[in-house]
Amino acid sequence: MRTLNVHTIPDRAERAAMSPAEARALFAQGLQVPTTGWCARYAQANIISVPQAVAFDMLLFATRNPKPCPVLEVLEAGQVRAPQGSAVYGDPAADIRVDVPRYRVWKEGELVEEASDVREHWRDDLVTFLIGCSFTFEHPMVEAGIPMRHQDAGTNVAMYRTSTRCLPAGDLGGPLVVSMRSIPAAQVADAVRITSRYPAVHGAPVHVGDPAGLGIEDLNSPDYGEAPTIEDGDVPVFWACGVTPQAMVLESRPQIALTHAPGHMLVTDIKDVVYAVP
Amino acid sequence: MRTLNVHTIPDRAERAAMSPAEARALFAQGLQVPTTGWCARYAQANIISVPQAVAFDMLLFATRNPKPCPVLEVLEAGQVRAPQGSAVYGDPAADIRVDVPRYRVWKEGELVEEASDVREHWRDDLVTFLIGCSFTFEHPMVEAGIPMRHQDAGTNVAMYRTSTRCLPAGDLGGPLVVSMRSIPAAQVADAVRITSRYPAVHGAPVHVGDPAGLGIEDLNSPDYGEAPTIEDGDVPVFWACGVTPQAMVLESRPQIALTHAPGHMLVTDIKDVVYAVP
Repeated sequence: MRTLNVHTIPDRAERAAMSPAEARALFAQGLQVPTTGWCARYAQANIISVPQAVAFDMLLFATRNPKPCPVLEVLEAGQVRAPQGSAVYGDPAADIRVDVPRYRVWKEGELVEEASDVREHWRDDLVTFLIGCSFTFEHPMVEAGIPMRHQDAGTNVAMYRTSTRCLPAGDLGGPLVVSMRSIPAAQVADAVRITSRYPAVHGAPVHVGDPAGLGIEDLNSPDYGEAPTIEDGDVPVFWACGVTPQAMVLESRPQIALTHAPGHMLVTDIKDVVYAVP
Repeated sequence: MRTLNVHTIPDRAERAAMSPAEARALFAQGLQVPTTGWCARYAQANIISVPQAVAFDMLLFATRNPKPCPVLEVLEAGQVRAPQGSAVYGDPAADIRVDVPRYRVWKEGELVEEASDVREHWRDDLVTFLIGCSFTFEHPMVEAGIPMRHQDAGTNVAMYRTSTRCLPAGDLGGPLVVSMRSIPAAQVADAVRITSRYPAVHGAPVHVGDPAGLGIEDLNSPDYGEAPTIEDGDVPVFWACGVTPQAMVLESRPQIALTHAPGHMLVTDIKDVVYAVP
């Protein structure tokens, strides 16, 4: 494999073959790209950091809404990586303030900045939640021959705010956000079967077909990510999405929140197979 | 069915057929019995109430140790039942201070009292965690023809403190507690297969055979519950147990904690099938 740096964007095979530590090193250098297709078989994670004063409500929001917010790890107040020994993110070289390819900085519910590094916004009372990401189960779907249209098109996945409400927790509430993959009708059952084995990364779809049933008016105008490619005979299949906490931040307006930019995930050190259920 | 009250302890068939609300009404009247075999197919729950000041650490402890501490519901500070609409425990007649057949009251890590009613100890800052219980998956095992030796003997299940440490969270830490069922060797695989479908109620065993590997010296001297019946050809099979938070309380000594007495569970309103994974 070529020696990679921030100036040599890896090709599709290189992205899939890369180790999590190698990928994070590139992102820490400033490479800002969506992580779909990177580091095959390693779990990817959504992140949200909030002040300790709202950390219980955030963890409770995640506990009550495990489909969009399956918690893989929590970094306690001020921690920039998990304790050594954590299989998820215990790498001593890890730093949650730079390891994600692109961040969003939220103040009182307003998106104030996107950045590749959030060290200047860091506070010692920030508690960080790593939340499972559906990019994780794309690899087993691809291996089973299910096309991932957005990967083939080289785009980010399409994500939508829905009319479904999450269960609130304390002062926190908001709508369910979903990611959509258009799946050939003959492979929808396989997609359900495969993804239901991975509840820690959103699991089975929350909705199959009929976007209107989720309050989605136009599949071509996603709220996050990029417009999808939909081929004849495809069915839109919707999975709960880890961008849901960002929709919650918009509504609930914590003093500060740091998140990833949609599709620009933390690549963790844990293999998806660890989370597989029968 | 007979009209039941606290003076007419139901027989085995009556216990299995009872609705959760009927069972809770009996317990609220003061009936103090283990709930193994009660209300077939409804999930049962361990409970622990702690002050709001340690609630984040408790929820994080549960999140990091999902095998012993799968969270089914959280009652926010001062709440004695879940919000209406909660499928787990939203019954408007519910009251977590009386619905459990027997409670334990802990102060600074010392067990100070067992009682059938803890209203006199209630505080408006108590946050209550409902944690899945392995009694839930005994019904599907029985239906599959796997003997439940403790049910046949009319005793509580045997539980043991182990030498395995839980992952700590903030100031909280302690050992893993397990429940043990002795299973005929030819049915161990079935027991694994069936229980692994229910991660919300402890899921697959953490250990099969070899008690010494968990630091258990004598199966006949359990730390909680009653001594087991073990027949020739049985293998001891160990599941993570929701008494684990009580072992944590012993070590971590929160100012106050209210828990169920081991084996004397909260019967919830949710069916086990809701938690089944593929």
